[in-house]
Amino acid sequence: MQQRVITFGEIMLRLATPGYQRFCQANSFEVTYGGSEANVAVSLAHLGIGSTFVTALPENDLAKSAMMNLMKFGVTPYIHFSGDRMGTYFLEKGASMRGSKVIYDRDGSSFAKLDPGNIDWEEIFDGASIFHWSGINPAVSSSAAEAALEAVKKANEKGLVITTDLNYRSKLWKWGKRPKEVLPSLLEYCDVIIGNEEAWSECLDISLSENVEDLSDDQISELTDQVFKRFEKTTKVVQTIRRTVSANHNTWEAALWNGEKLFRSPKYNIPEIVDRVGGGDSFVAGLIFGLCKNKGDQSSLSFATAASAIKLSVEGDFNLISESEIEGILKGGTSGRIVR
Amino acid sequence: MQQRVITFGEIMLRLATPGYQRFCQANSFEVTYGGSEANVAVSLAHLGIGSTFVTALPENDLAKSAMMNLMKFGVTPYIHFSGDRMGTYFLEKGASMRGSKVIYDRDGSSFAKLDPGNIDWEEIFDGASIFHWSGINPAVSSSAAEAALEAVKKANEKGLVITTDLNYRSKLWKWGKRPKEVLPSLLEYCDVIIGNEEAWSECLDISLSENVEDLSDDQISELTDQVFKRFEKTTKVVQTIRRTVSANHNTWEAALWNGEKLFRSPKYNIPEIVDRVGGGDSFVAGLIFGLCKNKGDQSSLSFATAASAIKLSVEGDFNLISESEIEGILKGGTSGRIVR
Amino acid sequence: MQQRVITFGEIMLRLATPGYQRFCQANSFEVTYGGSEANVAVSLAHLGIGSTFVTALPENDLAKSAMMNLMKFGVTPYIHFSGDRMGTYFLEKGASMRGSKVIYDRDGSSFAKLDPGNIDWEEIFDGASIFHWSGINPAVSSSAAEAALEAVKKANEKGLVITTDLNYRSKLWKWGKRPKEVLPSLLEYCDVIIGNEEAWSECLDISLSENVEDLSDDQISELTDQVFKRFEKTTKVVQTIRRTVSANHNTWEAALWNGEKLFRSPKYNIPEIVDRVGGGDSFVAGLIFGLCKNKGDQSSLSFATAASAIKLSVEGDFNLISESEIEGILKGGTSGRIVR
Amino acid sequence: MQQRVITFGEIMLRLATPGYQRFCQANSFEVTYGGSEANVAVSLAHLGIGSTFVTALPENDLAKSAMMNLMKFGVTPYIHFSGDRMGTYFLEKGASMRGSKVIYDRDGSSFAKLDPGNIDWEEIFDGASIFHWSGINPAVSSSAAEAALEAVKKANEKGLVITTDLNYRSKLWKWGKRPKEVLPSLLEYCDVIIGNEEAWSECLDISLSENVEDLSDDQISELTDQVFKRFEKTTKVVQTIRRTVSANHNTWEAALWNGEKLFRSPKYNIPEIVDRVGGGDSFVAGLIFGLCKNKGDQSSLSFATAASAIKLSVEGDFNLISESEIEGILKGGTSGRIVR
Amino acid sequence: MQQRVITFGEIMLRLATPGYQRFCQANSFEVTYGGSEANVAVSLAHLGIGSTFVTALPENDLAKSAMMNLMKFGVTPYIHFSGDRMGTYFLEKGASMRGSKVIYDRDGSSFAKLDPGNIDWEEIFDGASIFHWSGINPAVSSSAAEAALEAVKKANEKGLVITTDLNYRSKLWKWGKRPKEVLPSLLEYCDVIIGNEEAWSECLDISLSENVEDLSDDQISELTDQVFKRFEKTTKVVQTIRRTVSANHNTWEAALWNGEKLFRSPKYNIPEIVDRVGGGDSFVAGLIFGLCKNKGDQSSLSFATAASAIKLSVEGDFNLISESEIEGILKGGTSGRIVR
Amino acid sequence: MQQRVITFGEIMLRLATPGYQRFCQANSFEVTYGGSEANVAVSLAHLGIGSTFVTALPENDLAKSAMMNLMKFGVTPYIHFSGDRMGTYFLEKGASMRGSKVIYDRDGSSFAKLDPGNIDWEEIFDGASIFHWSGINPAVSSSAAEAALEAVKKANEKGLVITTDLNYRSKLWKWGKRPKEVLPSLLEYCDVIIGNEEAWSECLDISLSENVEDLSDDQISELTDQVFKRFEKTTKVVQTIRRTVSANHNTWEAALWNGEKLFRSPKYNIPEIVDRVGGGDSFVAGLIFGLCKNKGDQSSLSFATAASAIKLSVEGDFNLISESEIEGILKGGTSGRIVR
Repeated sequence: MQQRVITFGEIMLRLATPGYQRFCQANSFEVTYGGSEANVAVSLAHLGIGSTFVTALPENDLAKSAMMNLMKFGVTPYIHFSGDRMGTYFLEKGASMRGSKVIYDRDGSSFAKLDPGNIDWEEIFDGASIFHWSGINPAVSSSAAEAALEAVKKANEKGLVITTDLNYRSKLWKWGKRPKEVLPSLLEYCDVIIGNEEAWSECLDISLSENVEDLSDDQISELTDQVFKRFEKTTKVVQTIRRTVSANHNTWEAALWNGEKLFRSPKYNIPEIVDRVGGGDSFVAGLIFGLCKNKGDQSSLSFATAASAIKLSVEGDFNLISESEIEGILKGGTSGRIVR
Repeated sequence: MQQRVITFGEIMLRLATPGYQRFCQANSFEVTYGGSEANVAVSLAHLGIGSTFVTALPENDLAKSAMMNLMKFGVTPYIHFSGDRMGTYFLEKGASMRGSKVIYDRDGSSFAKLDPGNIDWEEIFDGASIFHWSGINPAVSSSAAEAALEAVKKANEKGLVITTDLNYRSKLWKWGKRPKEVLPSLLEYCDVIIGNEEAWSECLDISLSENVEDLSDDQISELTDQVFKRFEKTTKVVQTIRRTVSANHNTWEAALWNGEKLFRSPKYNIPEIVDRVGGGDSFVAGLIFGLCKNKGDQSSLSFATAASAIKLSVEGDFNLISESEIEGILKGGTSGRIVR
Repeated sequence: MQQRVITFGEIMLRLATPGYQRFCQANSFEVTYGGSEANVAVSLAHLGIGSTFVTALPENDLAKSAMMNLMKFGVTPYIHFSGDRMGTYFLEKGASMRGSKVIYDRDGSSFAKLDPGNIDWEEIFDGASIFHWSGINPAVSSSAAEAALEAVKKANEKGLVITTDLNYRSKLWKWGKRPKEVLPSLLEYCDVIIGNEEAWSECLDISLSENVEDLSDDQISELTDQVFKRFEKTTKVVQTIRRTVSANHNTWEAALWNGEKLFRSPKYNIPEIVDRVGGGDSFVAGLIFGLCKNKGDQSSLSFATAASAIKLSVEGDFNLISESEIEGILKGGTSGRIVR
Repeated sequence: MQQRVITFGEIMLRLATPGYQRFCQANSFEVTYGGSEANVAVSLAHLGIGSTFVTALPENDLAKSAMMNLMKFGVTPYIHFSGDRMGTYFLEKGASMRGSKVIYDRDGSSFAKLDPGNIDWEEIFDGASIFHWSGINPAVSSSAAEAALEAVKKANEKGLVITTDLNYRSKLWKWGKRPKEVLPSLLEYCDVIIGNEEAWSECLDISLSENVEDLSDDQISELTDQVFKRFEKTTKVVQTIRRTVSANHNTWEAALWNGEKLFRSPKYNIPEIVDRVGGGDSFVAGLIFGLCKNKGDQSSLSFATAASAIKLSVEGDFNLISESEIEGILKGGTSGRIVR
Repeated sequence: MQQRVITFGEIMLRLATPGYQRFCQANSFEVTYGGSEANVAVSLAHLGIGSTFVTALPENDLAKSAMMNLMKFGVTPYIHFSGDRMGTYFLEKGASMRGSKVIYDRDGSSFAKLDPGNIDWEEIFDGASIFHWSGINPAVSSSAAEAALEAVKKANEKGLVITTDLNYRSKLWKWGKRPKEVLPSLLEYCDVIIGNEEAWSECLDISLSENVEDLSDDQISELTDQVFKRFEKTTKVVQTIRRTVSANHNTWEAALWNGEKLFRSPKYNIPEIVDRVGGGDSFVAGLIFGLCKNKGDQSSLSFATAASAIKLSVEGDFNLISESEIEGILKGGTSGRIVR
Repeated sequence: MQQRVITFGEIMLRLATPGYQRFCQANSFEVTYGGSEANVAVSLAHLGIGSTFVTALPENDLAKSAMMNLMKFGVTPYIHFSGDRMGTYFLEKGASMRGSKVIYDRDGSSFAKLDPGNIDWEEIFDGASIFHWSGINPAVSSSAAEAALEAVKKANEKGLVITTDLNYRSKLWKWGKRPKEVLPSLLEYCDVIIGNEEAWSECLDISLSENVEDLSDDQISELTDQVFKRFEKTTKVVQTIRRTVSANHNTWEAALWNGEKLFRSPKYNIPEIVDRVGGGDSFVAGLIFGLCKNKGDQSSLSFATAASAIKLSVEGDFNLISESEIEGILKGGTSGRIVR
């Protein structure tokens, strides 16, 4: 039977300066829509998985445009219409030594004002198999954090597999509590936890005793096992490892710890990045795709890492790469030869 | 001596769909900056008048870009840096039977959160001769209304001439009070009050007993004299008269009542509108320009009306027409002949 | 119960020169998707009607983009993947005395190669209430004409209401037969037939004895009644009346004959056209919307005409106007006043 | 035998602000190439006439781009490579009451520095039948005026038919002499002289005793006959008549006096102008086309006027309208109906 | 005496997504024209060689635009007007691991429908010295293959030097025969044969016994000598060697075997590719340029390789690099220093 | 007290082809404004230093746009309005092996026609602390060279610190004298002289006896000490060292000799250049910023080099990087990590 994945989060208006223009040079913004969880939902739909995205939006034409963009890529939107504004983020793409810059403008958004009880999770979870949320959900406001907790609990009750990406963002978490005070109670319900070194540290106070540049298998196992042991329900802890050589050049790899064995992905060198935003989300979607297809740990991890590496060649938040293109990467076709 | 005009209000990020695209079709937004009072400030600076614009903005690169745009056109910005977001408005340009559409996104903006005491009016008003505010200032929030009242009182104490445009916008005024509960106490300090039929009615409960299409001189005098008599300090009441034939075709004229005599401007027929937004603000700036230059009532009114009529041929909120171009219109050069 | 409308036709890649550029000046083409029947499907979905679009497309990324565009606007695509290319049309927008120019490039398209038996109409028509096709379907190829006949017969068997727009295009119909040899056998199954003077004449050999500029009620009744009487199943014959003042200026009105009474719409004067293509299709969708909502003949006709008149202010083939905006026109709000 | 027309003048880089932007708003300029005589040459080539354009340009990539643009449209360029810069003009398109604005930047251009003797007219005129120059040639510099005189004399010696357009531009003629001191000695060699009221007055001191809005046939005959009688070789004097209703709306007509009879063209009303520049040049090319095809006076005049009226719907200096499209206008197809 | 090169092939409309957009993201396509043989013709004309391009096109404005683009760059087009559509290709530019993607839409094009006898080769070859065709000509259809054979035979009769590039494209060759069944009979007439490893294998069944990454001189000699020996008339066999590091990074070199000696070009490392399409064609043009200028084998090969390496920095199919710029590369100026 | 820096030079209209288009491909030019000294002025203002820019411009809308661009970024323009045209430069951005190309069009500009006595230096220098000019000033014309000498002398009299960048450009210096005949008399008044190997050689005849690729500390000291000793007033000689790996990849470092000690900056590797123009000017501004802030030699040099290295990631002539962003580079944040 076809699996259905429910994703919960905020979809934002993304306004990016063209090319490498700085904000003060821009006479136009490129308009797309995105946000960590919406990116996961689109990526799954693009890979052919039944995908429902749950969010709150105001009743206006921008929100309708956001909905249309989800529908365009095959996502079924489930919108709680309420509030007055949609979250927005402004993006200035960096180059070379100058990093990309994000200005969040999501205060007071419909999603930030979401309260527990607003969403009919009973109806939504009916017939669904996986529920995905991320650490951004509880970061935006106190009530959003409560709404996330409600969702996670309901999903657990209904027997869904629950996945999460810690997604630590230093510019969010302004409403009073720190992630380490909030996230653990949500993580208790999660089957799969995805994060990176910074997230383990900021959200769970888990870190190595010394700071090292390149982590060994043992060090990764040490970190992820701490996460694994802390949350009883968790069956997989996944760590992504990005190194930023320059704004246009990253390396990307990942590891998965299932409590017994550490799996490592290949390490991709990506010297010509087109759009770095949404890279982590495409990884998450790849991993959930693996779960849906029962690919096994190694295969899921490799698929997710390849999906994410090639995503960096795609403009916008969404990973518009097909399953067969990702398979091509996995088969070694990483040289970008022309297809004609 | 060179006059200096102080204008107070919110400058917003303006995001407009290109050409005649609807919101759901737009893949880019044209980025400019504007807002009623900022438009007046820019127009005055462009006409060579010393112009200071007072506002509140957050500390980010978008706000800095707004400042740079004021500086580009010769305005001296006076910014109270506070709050987290700048007001934004989204514009979809209409055509034919389809009207332009504005989505305001100014809730919780730095300006909306402005409190009395935030601005050092004493310093700002020093050496200034005219203070301009508009009915939008108190519309955005309760504290902004209080801040506007403070400003008007200070300007009055310092002996500045005070001008205002009622600028009624049905989508604003959401904070609890109606304009007619708030505006009168500010208008008591105003020397020049500008409005239109809808504004007299919505803000002051002043209207004709019957609804007519084309107002006679007597009817305009009847309306404006009621305004004139209600506010003791007021010396001029100015009514603008726009007829909307279609989204691309308006007529525009105005009248000025000084308590004794009604002055009428020419009526301009404008069948090929480029950008309708900011038309009223360019009128206000033209009128204040007349005050600064001691042009007299008829001449000021005609200058303001011509400035406003030709503004509709300019993209964006700002009226980037020179004094000599406006004089050309006044001399009858309304046929748009090529200059080469 | 929610109605579902099935529309059948070709969706094409539309490549338009920007602004008013001629083909030989264009360095880019604006990419959208359209085609008479797809336009009807999108318009219905945008008005909230359940809308399925049936077509044939090749297995490539352009075809997938066309599908995504249907999904974006709420249409459920039903695609028979076959053949090697999708139909394309090139558009040069005219101005003033220079008419718009269309270059069709649909020879050998997947749709033109469609054969009877390719589509599972049984499944598609299940639960549907209305079937719409147009005179373009049988114009593109002999096999497409047979496929259209098959569809119409199946729809009739399943008891669907069948609507059609004759849509005469002089540049199509190249495969050997003239419309008057082909269309009548399809029209026998139709409940509602929409056309204009040229279509009555070219497709049905029905015309007035003398050529007149402005048709009287009697003349329209005479024409439409001939159509009405010729096809036994037909209950409504609708004639649209466009006058082309210039490439940017049309008038538009319509009439409906139900065998007993002639209904007339208001006549709209549209002097500032944004995009003329798809005007007729938006009319058809408006009429079908009326059928779905049981609006009655006069009300359906007026709604359809208003929908079509305001469509001319929208870029692209699709009519992205909401029901409430059309209602606004019907209530007399034709002056295009700004909404803010 | 195929006729060949030699045109002599300056081709410039044309830099236009996009849409209706003012110079101070433009972040890009649209790049095309043009200039009165080059426009005539392109228009003739586009109509299928053998067309050689003679000019001077510097040895750089911009000049080569100008050459390529002539070649693209079928003109054979004959370039004297010399000097350091090419003439440039900046264009701001007006709307409504705001006229278009041209900034000429042609001082010190290769063409302005052209000297008599630089061009091998003997070779160029070989096999040619018509020579066209315009009043702009001698306006740009003293040496260009001398070079023009040399060309006209050589053309006369070689027996070519010589045509000219007076093309009075108030912003040129800065080098010391007034047109009336310079042009008459060139006009002595011309067979066909084209001008308008302003040109007759500024270049030849010929005007009516009183200023009238709409010229009668008698008044036009009076004006053109004075021109006709003053220059012995002249066989046709042609007057164009433009009225500027607004920047987007002109009327256009013309008259031809052959010393015996006055021919009038239809008067075209053009309310939706796309690009007004090059209108006169398209008229000139239409008239020369008539000469090449021996159309006769009335027919040539009508063709030229129609060509020019429809040119106003085309972006850029060049008239990219085909002979059959112009014929369509002459047959009454002025309503801009879509062709599909 | 000036040499004239005749090139024969299909010129297509090229529609490319902007920047790195995927097809489903594109709202516009960049419009240029290209095709292997047309690219050779333009490159030769740009290098100052007399260049005639022979093709078939339909009678429409797109075909005329293609012609104008050839003329712009100095090519003399010889067009057989016939058929209904012009070949089109859609291009999505890849980045990093994601390769560029071409969708061919050339079925049923005017060129594919070309028959022997359509072209007056007698007239075309008169005064010409070299004839170039490529392996794409016979790939598109059976009749095009016959037309190519006719051309090659006629060129041989007229004593022209014949050059060819095997240009193997896996997505073409759909009409029934494999290249190895068709090409050999054409190659019998060729003086110069250009190909790469894949082409030797797919078109001639010539390959090394084992697959190696970097070919030695001996291995190249072995391959090319097999080609050399197979076709009696052939005097030079040229092998190009591209390695694809990523979509934006290639290396490029070539070797020439004249039956006695192997010449090698320098190997260029090109890490910042602007447009990869047309790279091979610019090589071919460079080689033919060498033939025209009697440069000798080593010098021709080096010139061709340098021309091709720098072409990758140019947008579009056409190599718009001058002879002196290529000479600069040959002199070691490969660092891309600014010229000011 | 706040320092004020006076900069003197020509601001030009910069017209750049979009992306990597060649001149003959461009249908639009990107419009910005720049010029070595203006770039220094803007950079200083952006870093918060009081900055006045002195130049000559004609009275037209392009010149006004240039002024507005200076004002936008906080520079106070001091314009001598005279002459007829503003200097212009055309830029084609190179890639890979193809270098960027500049076409200067500054002959006869208002600045080139500037004469001594035109500028009221007395007024300008009042209250100022530093005067900056560059070797381009005297390169453009004889009178501009005299005007520069006048300025330098006046600045010296008024006790300003004088800085200069030799800025050797081979395409300028066309008016008769070589830089080595002109510059030394100006350099006598300078406190800080900035140049590179080519400038030392072309402007001062100072070079190493042998050409080496990588200069040792001793060799740099040898070169800069010769400059240091030649000009008595000079206290610092600064040498910048750029290596051009490709058009998109440079390395950048610098050294400062104060007569006693050689300071070296870090060497930056910049493989992904966005815009190379203005790199040297951003270095100069960084150095002057150090002077204004009394940073000391090492610190000023490092700041200047970092400012310049990150500038290469910014479009346009102007360095729109903030002080804190440069400090980030100095603290090792060179990996371009996203900020969110």
